[in-house]
Amino acid sequence: MPQSDCDIILADARALCDAYLGEIIPSEDQEPQRLHAAMRYAVFAGGKRLRPALALAVNRCLGGSDEACLPIMAAIEMLHTYTLVHDDLPAMDDDDMRRGQPACHKAFDEATAILCGDALLTLSMGCIAQHSARAVQFLSHACGSIGVVGGQQDDLDAENHELGPDSEALLMRIHERKTAALISVSCGLGALSADASDQDIAAFGEFGQHIGISFQMTDDLLDHTASSEDIGKTAGKDADQNKLTSLRVFGVDGTRERAAAHISAAQDVLAGFGDSANTLRGLADFIVNRNT
Amino acid sequence: MPQSDCDIILADARALCDAYLGEIIPSEDQEPQRLHAAMRYAVFAGGKRLRPALALAVNRCLGGSDEACLPIMAAIEMLHTYTLVHDDLPAMDDDDMRRGQPACHKAFDEATAILCGDALLTLSMGCIAQHSARAVQFLSHACGSIGVVGGQQDDLDAENHELGPDSEALLMRIHERKTAALISVSCGLGALSADASDQDIAAFGEFGQHIGISFQMTDDLLDHTASSEDIGKTAGKDADQNKLTSLRVFGVDGTRERAAAHISAAQDVLAGFGDSANTLRGLADFIVNRNT
Repeated sequence: MPQSDCDIILADARALCDAYLGEIIPSEDQEPQRLHAAMRYAVFAGGKRLRPALALAVNRCLGGSDEACLPIMAAIEMLHTYTLVHDDLPAMDDDDMRRGQPACHKAFDEATAILCGDALLTLSMGCIAQHSARAVQFLSHACGSIGVVGGQQDDLDAENHELGPDSEALLMRIHERKTAALISVSCGLGALSADASDQDIAAFGEFGQHIGISFQMTDDLLDHTASSEDIGKTAGKDADQNKLTSLRVFGVDGTRERAAAHISAAQDVLAGFGDSANTLRGLADFIVNRNT
Repeated sequence: MPQSDCDIILADARALCDAYLGEIIPSEDQEPQRLHAAMRYAVFAGGKRLRPALALAVNRCLGGSDEACLPIMAAIEMLHTYTLVHDDLPAMDDDDMRRGQPACHKAFDEATAILCGDALLTLSMGCIAQHSARAVQFLSHACGSIGVVGGQQDDLDAENHELGPDSEALLMRIHERKTAALISVSCGLGALSADASDQDIAAFGEFGQHIGISFQMTDDLLDHTASSEDIGKTAGKDADQNKLTSLRVFGVDGTRERAAAHISAAQDVLAGFGDSANTLRGLADFIVNRNT
């Protein structure tokens, strides 16, 4: 029952990750109270904990212990949260809603939101260092100027992009960096926490790359078709900001086909891993079939 | 000759650190070009390389190799630079000049400056992981919500602070976190790169804490007395923004006395280290006697 496996891993990841995050993020009683309140607000505002769930599912698939995966899951979620807090800033995507609640800079203020993101990123790196220096290097590489941060820069620079022969290549570079890089490294880090071989770490990184691209394409479809209430942020913003999206380059049907093809490629990567990969198969299907 | 020792270590740190930074920060030819141009602009805009020089001086004092110190020096300077880029943003201290040139958000734009800071922080952590996971944890702890980032939040929250019985404690907490935490960890990391004992790492951390507080008090004096041209940023801003500064709490003479007392306490820490600490003695004097 893939759907059931999928529910279990998402619930397990949430329970494990949130308990650990609750311990390591300083409490709101500690100075500066406003900053710690903002960090907790941003991290505990909701979210599916999809990336920690992927790390945990890969780790379990390869026989790793949940305990070894804890600092990795927590670091990934703090990293993801900081990118959302900074991306929502007025100077960036300028979005007032996130996960169905006021964005951090609306609930607090811009300066606090910038510092909240900086503090979450800093804590994320200290947290994952509890696993190993190698895990820090994986995360840093995936999330820096040729990864997540570079993807956000490309995405901003592509506002009001005129479609042309280079559009598909630019779109795919944005998807690969802005979204897929963190999902891919989440899977790779899950393998690392299970002491996997370099070959298996690379295989799960490839799996994550495919589902990451599919995830972003599904996001673009949802921005077009779903309500703001469903997705917890302002729907239809991509078109309003004239962003370079899958829909502009491939159309609705072309985007659906490509999202499905990447999930199929991801499933192919899992072929050698037998029944222990069933949960990952369920997560891959969840990513492309979700409606929020 | 302390002054001469001091010149040599600053020149050595600059040469070693800048060559290494030139290698690890992606070139402006690499996409996203605008982001990489901003990172290089911010890092190579000037600056004394004081924090890398402190790490290198401690490392040499304890017999470490320059090579072991390279990723530590580069990581510290990128970390420091990211804090300057973010602090200068309009939502934060709103300063248009830095190191005698337009601040990053003026030379580029706000979104690029936010991402430039994020990318430098991310690269800094990946860089210092080349030394060890322990070095990552030191840097993360010193620079997070109860360190550098927390100090900036306290500093912003203290704008328009009314002087009262708690002012001195709040001022010292801001100095300790916003400024001294990074200077202290630079010295501690220099000891770590020389494979020092925990006791020596702690001793040099204490040395750095004292000179860090003295550095900030000297900064407050310079903001009051020097020209914008001399300090490379807008002079007199602290008073304009009604910030909580050493001068408001201690007056000019009281600030001078306390800055000198912290340098004296720092020199006491070095008492057991003989002639090998002469360069550090020179750097400590430089910090309180500088006029830029």
